[in-house]
Amino acid sequence: MPHIQVDENLPGIRALLAFSPETAGPIGALAEILLRTSDSLSRVDRELIGMYVSYLNDCFYCNHSHGEIAVCYLDGDRKLVNAVRTDYKKAPISEKLKSLLQIAAKVQKSGKDVLPEDIENAKLQGATDHDIHDTVLISAAFCMMNRYVDGLAANTPLDMSSYPLRAKQVAEKGYGNHIFLTPQP
Amino acid sequence: MPHIQVDENLPGIRALLAFSPETAGPIGALAEILLRTSDSLSRVDRELIGMYVSYLNDCFYCNHSHGEIAVCYLDGDRKLVNAVRTDYKKAPISEKLKSLLQIAAKVQKSGKDVLPEDIENAKLQGATDHDIHDTVLISAAFCMMNRYVDGLAANTPLDMSSYPLRAKQVAEKGYGNHIFLTPQP
Repeated sequence: MPHIQVDENLPGIRALLAFSPETAGPIGALAEILLRTSDSLSRVDRELIGMYVSYLNDCFYCNHSHGEIAVCYLDGDRKLVNAVRTDYKKAPISEKLKSLLQIAAKVQKSGKDVLPEDIENAKLQGATDHDIHDTVLISAAFCMMNRYVDGLAANTPLDMSSYPLRAKQVAEKGYGNHIFLTPQP
Repeated sequence: MPHIQVDENLPGIRALLAFSPETAGPIGALAEILLRTSDSLSRVDRELIGMYVSYLNDCFYCNHSHGEIAVCYLDGDRKLVNAVRTDYKKAPISEKLKSLLQIAAKVQKSGKDVLPEDIENAKLQGATDHDIHDTVLISAAFCMMNRYVDGLAANTPLDMSSYPLRAKQVAEKGYGNHIFLTPQP
């Protein structure tokens, strides 16, 4: 049960955004820019980074929500998403994305854990300053979202069939609040 | 030295916001709403929560930036701010703020650490659902900001006399980007 009184028909972060529309605006705008921009880092890469950080933070709702959005962009390849979750170093993804996931995993623990050699490695694999910036900020932003969701004990749907439905909506229409704040599907 | 090429004349998060103006917009807007709203939770309370989470995350720049903003709102009472930093349970602050700092400290570790008894305790001390929501989100947002700053190794001024100058600017004018993106003072 959520720690505060929110709309029970809205899952996860959506109920919190509806509870506080003033903060929902910038949070939705940040997600839209960080996860839907596709210059250099693709939308799949961005969602995989967010999903992986949520997995490390043990945030069931964000892990599965964003995992399913990545599945949408990957035309249903759930196997790849699970491979990143369980051991990204062995997953069939680019060396560049692996080097960025390494940075994201360090940011998840503490910003101070990121070392110059992590950055050098990412640059060697072709990462630009913008890729590195966005990776750090996506990881940091999911450390916020995961804590927001779990810190208020937001409702987490356990029916796994509900995640692909909502993921499709976000994959098609983005993180605009019109999607977040309506209970269906 | 920062991990990416940013304006060396801008300290801390300001250089990162200038590097990525697209994301600076929603980040500044979120800070403005979370830290400058003063219904129920005062601006001092909000800055103290952010400062304390930054202290726990060992983010020197955010800890001292927001500590000094609280000092401004408190008409120079740096002793109180230090008392919150070192042992808030013994600091001369309200029992309500202590109960919220307890929640914020748990969110800093993991959202899952917040227990129903933490919430009950805060409510007993007079906290509303909105106070609890804002406390969790402020703590979560500083977990983002701290990781953003330290994950990119943003320049941290070690000259402590520079913090009160910038704090005064924010205390007077808020978190609008016009302040963040200019090097002076």
